[in-house]
Amino acid sequence: MKDIYIADLANFDEGKLFDGFFLVLAKQQRLTKSNKPYLNLILGDKTGQLEGRVWEPADPRIAKEFDRGDIVKARGSASKFDDRLQMKVDQLRLAQPGEVEKSDLLPSTTYDVAQMWRQLLSFVESIANPDLKLLLATILNDPQFAEPYREAPAAKQLHHAWLGGLLEHVVSLCTLADRVAPHYPLLDRDLLMTGVILHDIGKIRELSWGTGFEYTIEGMLLGHIQIGAALAEKTIDSLPNFPAKLKTLVLHMVLSHHGKLEFGSPKLPMIPEALVLNFLDDLDAKMQAVAGEFEKSAREGKGPNELTNKVWALDNRQLLNTKRWLGEP
Amino acid sequence: MKDIYIADLANFDEGKLFDGFFLVLAKQQRLTKSNKPYLNLILGDKTGQLEGRVWEPADPRIAKEFDRGDIVKARGSASKFDDRLQMKVDQLRLAQPGEVEKSDLLPSTTYDVAQMWRQLLSFVESIANPDLKLLLATILNDPQFAEPYREAPAAKQLHHAWLGGLLEHVVSLCTLADRVAPHYPLLDRDLLMTGVILHDIGKIRELSWGTGFEYTIEGMLLGHIQIGAALAEKTIDSLPNFPAKLKTLVLHMVLSHHGKLEFGSPKLPMIPEALVLNFLDDLDAKMQAVAGEFEKSAREGKGPNELTNKVWALDNRQLLNTKRWLGEP
Amino acid sequence: MKDIYIADLANFDEGKLFDGFFLVLAKQQRLTKSNKPYLNLILGDKTGQLEGRVWEPADPRIAKEFDRGDIVKARGSASKFDDRLQMKVDQLRLAQPGEVEKSDLLPSTTYDVAQMWRQLLSFVESIANPDLKLLLATILNDPQFAEPYREAPAAKQLHHAWLGGLLEHVVSLCTLADRVAPHYPLLDRDLLMTGVILHDIGKIRELSWGTGFEYTIEGMLLGHIQIGAALAEKTIDSLPNFPAKLKTLVLHMVLSHHGKLEFGSPKLPMIPEALVLNFLDDLDAKMQAVAGEFEKSAREGKGPNELTNKVWALDNRQLLNTKRWLGEP
Amino acid sequence: MKDIYIADLANFDEGKLFDGFFLVLAKQQRLTKSNKPYLNLILGDKTGQLEGRVWEPADPRIAKEFDRGDIVKARGSASKFDDRLQMKVDQLRLAQPGEVEKSDLLPSTTYDVAQMWRQLLSFVESIANPDLKLLLATILNDPQFAEPYREAPAAKQLHHAWLGGLLEHVVSLCTLADRVAPHYPLLDRDLLMTGVILHDIGKIRELSWGTGFEYTIEGMLLGHIQIGAALAEKTIDSLPNFPAKLKTLVLHMVLSHHGKLEFGSPKLPMIPEALVLNFLDDLDAKMQAVAGEFEKSAREGKGPNELTNKVWALDNRQLLNTKRWLGEP
Amino acid sequence: MKDIYIADLANFDEGKLFDGFFLVLAKQQRLTKSNKPYLNLILGDKTGQLEGRVWEPADPRIAKEFDRGDIVKARGSASKFDDRLQMKVDQLRLAQPGEVEKSDLLPSTTYDVAQMWRQLLSFVESIANPDLKLLLATILNDPQFAEPYREAPAAKQLHHAWLGGLLEHVVSLCTLADRVAPHYPLLDRDLLMTGVILHDIGKIRELSWGTGFEYTIEGMLLGHIQIGAALAEKTIDSLPNFPAKLKTLVLHMVLSHHGKLEFGSPKLPMIPEALVLNFLDDLDAKMQAVAGEFEKSAREGKGPNELTNKVWALDNRQLLNTKRWLGEP
Amino acid sequence: MKDIYIADLANFDEGKLFDGFFLVLAKQQRLTKSNKPYLNLILGDKTGQLEGRVWEPADPRIAKEFDRGDIVKARGSASKFDDRLQMKVDQLRLAQPGEVEKSDLLPSTTYDVAQMWRQLLSFVESIANPDLKLLLATILNDPQFAEPYREAPAAKQLHHAWLGGLLEHVVSLCTLADRVAPHYPLLDRDLLMTGVILHDIGKIRELSWGTGFEYTIEGMLLGHIQIGAALAEKTIDSLPNFPAKLKTLVLHMVLSHHGKLEFGSPKLPMIPEALVLNFLDDLDAKMQAVAGEFEKSAREGKGPNELTNKVWALDNRQLLNTKRWLGEP
Repeated sequence: MKDIYIADLANFDEGKLFDGFFLVLAKQQRLTKSNKPYLNLILGDKTGQLEGRVWEPADPRIAKEFDRGDIVKARGSASKFDDRLQMKVDQLRLAQPGEVEKSDLLPSTTYDVAQMWRQLLSFVESIANPDLKLLLATILNDPQFAEPYREAPAAKQLHHAWLGGLLEHVVSLCTLADRVAPHYPLLDRDLLMTGVILHDIGKIRELSWGTGFEYTIEGMLLGHIQIGAALAEKTIDSLPNFPAKLKTLVLHMVLSHHGKLEFGSPKLPMIPEALVLNFLDDLDAKMQAVAGEFEKSAREGKGPNELTNKVWALDNRQLLNTKRWLGEP
Repeated sequence: MKDIYIADLANFDEGKLFDGFFLVLAKQQRLTKSNKPYLNLILGDKTGQLEGRVWEPADPRIAKEFDRGDIVKARGSASKFDDRLQMKVDQLRLAQPGEVEKSDLLPSTTYDVAQMWRQLLSFVESIANPDLKLLLATILNDPQFAEPYREAPAAKQLHHAWLGGLLEHVVSLCTLADRVAPHYPLLDRDLLMTGVILHDIGKIRELSWGTGFEYTIEGMLLGHIQIGAALAEKTIDSLPNFPAKLKTLVLHMVLSHHGKLEFGSPKLPMIPEALVLNFLDDLDAKMQAVAGEFEKSAREGKGPNELTNKVWALDNRQLLNTKRWLGEP
Repeated sequence: MKDIYIADLANFDEGKLFDGFFLVLAKQQRLTKSNKPYLNLILGDKTGQLEGRVWEPADPRIAKEFDRGDIVKARGSASKFDDRLQMKVDQLRLAQPGEVEKSDLLPSTTYDVAQMWRQLLSFVESIANPDLKLLLATILNDPQFAEPYREAPAAKQLHHAWLGGLLEHVVSLCTLADRVAPHYPLLDRDLLMTGVILHDIGKIRELSWGTGFEYTIEGMLLGHIQIGAALAEKTIDSLPNFPAKLKTLVLHMVLSHHGKLEFGSPKLPMIPEALVLNFLDDLDAKMQAVAGEFEKSAREGKGPNELTNKVWALDNRQLLNTKRWLGEP
Repeated sequence: MKDIYIADLANFDEGKLFDGFFLVLAKQQRLTKSNKPYLNLILGDKTGQLEGRVWEPADPRIAKEFDRGDIVKARGSASKFDDRLQMKVDQLRLAQPGEVEKSDLLPSTTYDVAQMWRQLLSFVESIANPDLKLLLATILNDPQFAEPYREAPAAKQLHHAWLGGLLEHVVSLCTLADRVAPHYPLLDRDLLMTGVILHDIGKIRELSWGTGFEYTIEGMLLGHIQIGAALAEKTIDSLPNFPAKLKTLVLHMVLSHHGKLEFGSPKLPMIPEALVLNFLDDLDAKMQAVAGEFEKSAREGKGPNELTNKVWALDNRQLLNTKRWLGEP
Repeated sequence: MKDIYIADLANFDEGKLFDGFFLVLAKQQRLTKSNKPYLNLILGDKTGQLEGRVWEPADPRIAKEFDRGDIVKARGSASKFDDRLQMKVDQLRLAQPGEVEKSDLLPSTTYDVAQMWRQLLSFVESIANPDLKLLLATILNDPQFAEPYREAPAAKQLHHAWLGGLLEHVVSLCTLADRVAPHYPLLDRDLLMTGVILHDIGKIRELSWGTGFEYTIEGMLLGHIQIGAALAEKTIDSLPNFPAKLKTLVLHMVLSHHGKLEFGSPKLPMIPEALVLNFLDDLDAKMQAVAGEFEKSAREGKGPNELTNKVWALDNRQLLNTKRWLGEP
Repeated sequence: MKDIYIADLANFDEGKLFDGFFLVLAKQQRLTKSNKPYLNLILGDKTGQLEGRVWEPADPRIAKEFDRGDIVKARGSASKFDDRLQMKVDQLRLAQPGEVEKSDLLPSTTYDVAQMWRQLLSFVESIANPDLKLLLATILNDPQFAEPYREAPAAKQLHHAWLGGLLEHVVSLCTLADRVAPHYPLLDRDLLMTGVILHDIGKIRELSWGTGFEYTIEGMLLGHIQIGAALAEKTIDSLPNFPAKLKTLVLHMVLSHHGKLEFGSPKLPMIPEALVLNFLDDLDAKMQAVAGEFEKSAREGKGPNELTNKVWALDNRQLLNTKRWLGEP
């Protein structure tokens, strides 16, 4: 486990020495005004990022061979420049395998992954339709899908942008759909739950999360909607006697879950289950974004009478934390 | 009670005589090609509308004094013209007071109004915040608000466009909000429920439903959002010591519930409760529109493999009834 | 072969008897004002549609058993009503198998299908990349794809909405792409031609053309873009060692060919070949629409100084036929 | 009165000492690269803002207790950094009450407030309809409204963003409406003038102008349109026998004066007076923005052949000062 | 002068014979259900249009040679069909030259053209800048421009769509600009008045008004903005020493007067005079549309509590006639 | 010829002295923190721009009299600051006439201008219609048009933004149109080629390229579409007997070539030739932008697996270089 996290440095004494493990997110060679070469680094861990400066790259205590994507151990001191934290790096070496958990270096869900996975499987268990249940079980029991499903973030940024974020988002959505489904008798609950569990599965290939969260080229050119639909279709085609109508419906739910053509869904929701999936997905993503903004405001020291910053995911609206404003617990 | 409804006539023998009570929705004097005057009527009851033709307006069996908005008893026979049903009216007189229920002549909720009202009051009862509870109780105990609240349609057309539709929509929304609220701990449930119960209250003055559903001039020029906010504000100002912050939040929920400026909300939702209100209101209206379309498709004799007509309230999408297509019960 | 086509009737003597084969596009039972039942039909052939009226459905010369989708032989006379042609049907019987070609009853390409198919195959032959060539050959040699590819219309309406329209559009586009590709050295011609040949292949399942041109339910819920991408992906996965990068590029071209999210492409063109495919596809469709409008104007007797009607596919613009206006040949 | 204003510093000798009174708009503690703490201030007066640096915050000549919103007297010298003026602060103390006018520290109208107020009252005097005249007199004679009406800016930024700006904008609009009204006989001049005088009155609560121009939370959540309509409604309801129709019309004018839903009006103008109010309000705001831009260009030393910068309030257009370009007086 | 106008027929006894002069707007030969040929005409005069039916085209009292664009005298009787007035024509002959004024047959301004022309010239007279005054005088004294300027409608439909409408609109706009200009000292009044007088001059070639109001092909392909700018440029180039800067400004005003690219102006207003021209032009057109709608509502017998129909030129808004609703004179 | 270009400096030793000729794009006097005046320059040549700092402006080796737009010879050394290259200038003097080519100081086409001009003339030669050929020959033989036509950039930035860019773009478009025209028999090739050659001719006055690429005031207020149409119209009017219809068509092509009102065309393409011109113009501009981005990515050292930066001219899309990704030559 790491001893010190980037988020801790905000309250750290300037100039005091510390050690830490970091993921190297960027590395550039530059020159000072007096033409001396130095290294400019972006270092990250699960709590944030900071800029690092190696003023003496030739110092024997600075590793010569390291690059973007490597995990390093660095020693130095912090200072502020234009309100941004900066680290002056005195020593730096590659981390040994096992010295630090990857989950310490990328932002990660605060929930227990194993428990969320059990919740997900119990939702699958609750499905009555045998074809849909078999489809989901086939996918979730296949390690090539299950493993990244447990790890993937739900987004590069915006909402649930952390390791385990995809699973966290889907489990939240399952719970929500489970509450809403009985309210509308015309809904086929099994189909809705299937849509919830599969709608974002393409993200396991759209994104990469080894060293920071990035889009893959496949992800950029095809998108998680198409990747997810293809993945579902391939699994369905491998099952004996999966009903053709059900296949069309499952694929339609994956395709239409963004709800609008301009959000990248090639089809609008045309069945009640797809309509509800789109609403709940959107609501859950936005509520998570709201919660994240409120936490950020608190972290930044905003008072209860202050609105959040403008939130990109909510049309640049500013939000007010009702409970805090009213002084509620 | 009425004996025969307009919806029944579709399967009625053409030419066979029948009696019925109708609301006169329009009345025009016209001339035949041979210059004989006749009356053209639009007659309505709670199941629909049909055109009526009085070819002999001078016949003593035809009342001379009746107008738009009157309830009449008419005798005649039906026939189809260009797929639209038409009634040839042989006799017509004004209905006696008490001969027929107004609720038979305008479309009306299929739920029990008294029971829905009790449900609504029990949701008020469930509110912990004493100021909000008092506000709601004050409004719902005031007959000048409570009576039209029980009667009003939720819209002129589109969704819940029937007597009692407003109450039906709000009770459905209370139930739904009650299910969703616990899922998001940052929500102030009391405030959300207050917003649900008050958001559309301006419709009691925006619409008139005496003879068909119409907008009032006040409704056209001010809109139910402004009327509702003013009504809430006036009641709040009559209560002693209602907290100013809470007043701002309640008014904000009414103002922002359409969710977008272009839908007539002068403010976007800026608190989590307003965000959720907007989502659930929109979802409930759309799901009711979907259910209504599926019923209409069945009534029109469409098969399970046919999509509905284009639905205006859903961006002119056509919808597929999943359960029916799959042959589910 | 049919003797008389609907388009011929415009100049036919009103009231004169004629025989013809027609596809029944709609059939409804109605009542006259005097309550006599009659049949209202929509009859079609490859040149157009007309309304048919059977005033004496009980006449023994009128077949009792026929329905939407059947081919019938009818005798009667034509007249105009409100500028629309109408046929009074005196006799009507089901057509015998072989009496008439289906291609006479639905609008059909004016080009030779066999020859267009050979052109298409020669474009495949011109591709140097062995993987792409094998992919195309595999699809075009598979009767389950090749047969509908030769038959399908390119659209339900708008452009190339006739049997063979898909093939005609693709061959035109191949020729055009072949002219344009050498102008831009950065284009990979093989990839561009592959995109041209596969971009609309999903239409073979999105549309049905047995009795009129309709969308299938699969087509409505998934769309030809997704169907086509899935079809390409499945074929690619069946080929040994098809390069993964090439697969991503081929699928991207199919997905992005509509060029805008709001036109149903889930991804915008992000490679030069996809950009060019989108431009040429759009240009070819619009030029065909222009040509069709000019023919329609001529058919309707418009003079060279008159603009066409408003063209839906061109933002409701009206167009001027330059050559005709200038009196050029 | 202040001796030196921020706008004067542009032409001031760099490094020369000066004194000044300033409003503290922001205050932050920071560290130099060598880890020495310093203070970073934003100082403002009615002519602009500048950054201030206190390099020796421990110096006894620097007050220890001052904060955002305080008025201070500071001594120091100016220099340019990246084209922005910066003040090196050597001494700083809190201002004594009465040492400086608040109107010197926030931008303020250049017109005489008392005279504008008399003009406004004379427009009220010119209204013939006794109900409307009484409504306006009641509001303008109530110090709780009249006082902030005389002080408020018309906006946080964009147009008339200075103390007295609301009054200046309304008086300009009264004069303009007075010129335009006789041109259209169908206009009810009294109603139009009432709309002009009340349309922006909600800004007295939407904005705060004690220390810089800010939105209040009430202003953010409700907006000046709703606040103004509520204020008008409450006053109307306090008057005996104010006609109901007139109330609806007055409220409609306030609600609709932004002219478009997407600009925050919940209703479009539906009466001629509201239509004209929206046009003139928009025109006056834009013409003021144009005048302001021309002044800014002159201040920045632009020549007569140069366009202004892009103007946000005018769709990022650049404007040309016609008279100056033509060399007219 | 005509004795009877189409607008009078609404209150005319059905079946009673009358004579009238009409412009033939359309002429079609058709067949009755019993295959008898008849003529269907659209007849117009300055008050409206009606459909005419010649059931006996072979009758010697019916002229054989007449066509679209001819003026005819017709005798017959009126009746209503589906609420539209229809004329049964018994006799019809070509009108003699001089029997009727063209201004009786097309809608025409209700103002005195000669007097409006004098007003226009006096506005030119009020211009101080000699170059602009010479430009305007040159154009308005040239019969090739002046004559159509006095006759042209301002639009095919929408606003001022009648003979003399262009002049009426420009004179109204001159008066309005004359009132507004002094309110903004930064405006160059001469330039503004020049823009007002020239902005729509291209309409004299964009429209034709010989027989109904139509677009010319030149008008469709180039538009009145380009035609007007070219006309102004050509005249300017014919004047000695017209300043180049002034030319650019005059052309800019013509080009930008629609105010938005999507309304067909290739440039947005970038000088204050162009901004004001766009506002006043838009306001005047809309106020005329409002006045026209109010007249139409009165003609159609709508009561003071009824809104107008939806007005296309005002985003399909419905409008309320304030004065009439309030019972004002 | 210049010895060293700005683009070369990226790989130049920091601190080593060099000489170069540069265009002065901006010149500002500033103060150091210690209040010493220095000069800040933007220097450009055909390969890019860099910031220059003259720390000792009083040094006799620094010219006193030079300004924006001058060509200078400067000696100094380069260093990097925040990844941007900066030049420390030790000596600076005005260049002698003839010392350096203007084409070395502004970005310039890489093609041979004389040869492109011959290509253009041969396209004119290929036109059969004598009126169109005479029109083009008249313009291209007039030095007042021909000279700037050979020099002008096609844009201020975006595509073909270099000297000779207009000619390069037009010649590319001629070649492309020549390939496409035969594919659509309804096209009038002569008219299309005329439109291609004239569509952007207004740019010779819309832009100035003496010292950097700028819009002229005429260009800002009128735009190249209007300037080009006026230029074409004036030339046409100077030719004897140029057919009126052909004039309308030529002007329509210039006016409509941007294809959309919101892109500044006052008319949409309404003839097939204008439609094709708009498509090919757009395609060619975009393909040039793509090629430019690919070169930029290579220059910036991006690998074959990296997408380009977001491209403004392509809706902020990122692009993938297909051939490079596939490892093709």
